Amino acid sequence: MQQPAELKTALEIHLKAIADRPSWQSGLYAPMSYILGLGGKRIRPMLLLMSYQAMSGRDGTEALNCATAVEFFHNFSLIHDDIMDNAPVRRGKPTVHEKWNTNTAILSGDAMFALAYEYLIVGFEPRAAALMREFTRVSVGVCEGQMQDMEMAGQRASIPQYIEMIRKKTAMLIGGSLSIGAIAAGAQPEEVAQLYALGETAGIGFQLHDDYLDVYAPADKFGKQVGGDILENKMTFLLIRCIEKADAIQKRELDRLLYEEPSPEAKVAGVMALYEALGIKAETMAEMDRYFAAADALAADLRSRPGFGLIDDFFQSLSKRDH
Amino acid sequence: MQQPAELKTALEIHLKAIADRPSWQSGLYAPMSYILGLGGKRIRPMLLLMSYQAMSGRDGTEALNCATAVEFFHNFSLIHDDIMDNAPVRRGKPTVHEKWNTNTAILSGDAMFALAYEYLIVGFEPRAAALMREFTRVSVGVCEGQMQDMEMAGQRASIPQYIEMIRKKTAMLIGGSLSIGAIAAGAQPEEVAQLYALGETAGIGFQLHDDYLDVYAPADKFGKQVGGDILENKMTFLLIRCIEKADAIQKRELDRLLYEEPSPEAKVAGVMALYEALGIKAETMAEMDRYFAAADALAADLRSRPGFGLIDDFFQSLSKRDH
Repeated sequence: MQQPAELKTALEIHLKAIADRPSWQSGLYAPMSYILGLGGKRIRPMLLLMSYQAMSGRDGTEALNCATAVEFFHNFSLIHDDIMDNAPVRRGKPTVHEKWNTNTAILSGDAMFALAYEYLIVGFEPRAAALMREFTRVSVGVCEGQMQDMEMAGQRASIPQYIEMIRKKTAMLIGGSLSIGAIAAGAQPEEVAQLYALGETAGIGFQLHDDYLDVYAPADKFGKQVGGDILENKMTFLLIRCIEKADAIQKRELDRLLYEEPSPEAKVAGVMALYEALGIKAETMAEMDRYFAAADALAADLRSRPGFGLIDDFFQSLSKRDH
Repeated sequence: MQQPAELKTALEIHLKAIADRPSWQSGLYAPMSYILGLGGKRIRPMLLLMSYQAMSGRDGTEALNCATAVEFFHNFSLIHDDIMDNAPVRRGKPTVHEKWNTNTAILSGDAMFALAYEYLIVGFEPRAAALMREFTRVSVGVCEGQMQDMEMAGQRASIPQYIEMIRKKTAMLIGGSLSIGAIAAGAQPEEVAQLYALGETAGIGFQLHDDYLDVYAPADKFGKQVGGDILENKMTFLLIRCIEKADAIQKRELDRLLYEEPSPEAKVAGVMALYEALGIKAETMAEMDRYFAAADALAADLRSRPGFGLIDDFFQSLSKRDH
């Protein structure tokens, strides 16, 4: 059983060995090498490794290739999402379609998705069918979530629609990272389902937390611009609740801010004032805590397992992060 | 053991049942339903079904889901290739990105690729690892081939580069359809490899045949415009050999035709006259026949198997088709 810091080191070494291969420095593979090199918290593969440890009692590094699969899937989805969102920058660097071009980004993403399946089963061939079923179920769900996100842009969404969208787009892969690790470990179907539900529920909480941090993160600790979502008129839990709760006058003010206010500072300040007047901050925190509490309850009878504490701690650190 | 006509009927019914599902009429799934409905010869799933029959001695319809996987992969690659090629029309209908939009086409393609993996192993779970390894190997190869095709556009390619490109882009999935059917049937690794090599070799022949038919198909039988590749300045075996064989005067004439001739009719007629002068037609036929003969030799000791004759006949019909 390895500690998270050791797992993270082993994972980074593993990913770097893939990204640094000579054959990965050109053509289809250069963009994969590039996006893997942009780093990140590696939340999904780390959850997979810890889930594998908790459910097998063995060393998580046995599942490094399997963990690579979820990181590859995540990176593939970032490449394609950035095309669809027309995003120029990711983690302070040009996105793949900016640095290369859209066609290369489509195709590199496709190949990275295919390669994810190759890594998924390495060392766990007898469980290949179950692993690939779960991986495919999650992959299709993430695509459905991204589609719902696109359909929602510029529309008036309800909170249930929004929660369903983030459940698929973000939370399914969090749940899937835990369930896939558990399947590789040979866990029972009930345990796999429980871990999945725990991860999915916490994943919704994480996305609500992200929505919250966009506006209320301590300015000196949060890398991103405060109010980035507001400036993009992005549908978040906060904005949807603000639209729902606003009276006629506040509604007019919100519309003016979203569609007519030329100053970015005034726009963010104005929307934040409406959030303040309508109690949106407290409501978002309460909603997020509901999901974390539900995830906590789902974890109850898994806590007896040695190794589960690491997952618990990891989730705690994610739900408290202010950066 | 089923005859090809019966297999084709069963396959079409199977695909239509998927495409007609109520949940497939909107969102992410409508484009998948649409492209499946555009029809086509279903060469890849048919080869898979016949390979399964030949290697198992059983009824090919047992492998309909597995055959669906290669058809899904093929359709996914058409959706994404049409985006990359900026193609407005496929089989006389608007392409997916034209009928919907590019983002929907990217995402529908992604989900269709994921779903291919779901179908791949249905009924063959104990062979899931081998099936998905072969499927992934082929998928990545097809992406590499498409990348080479894009890199080749507007460049001077050599014949070996061109053959390598079509080997990956087109022939690997022909070979893969046979090898995947054989893996599902429980064939020995040597037999799987032999079927793959046979399919890949014939697949190169089929692509050369397509290049040939673009120019020399009987006009009344061939649906497409004669000389479509010429009008697009598309690198084909014929054009590459013409560039290689042309003397200085012919080279200037070819450049004028490709880059300056305003009349489509004059362009096609002019390039065809150069092909005629340089013996390109006979050379292409000879090259194509070399691949078919090599495929034939690879098939030699498989001919003893009942059911292999169907594959033989199918390849014969494809290599003789003039439509």
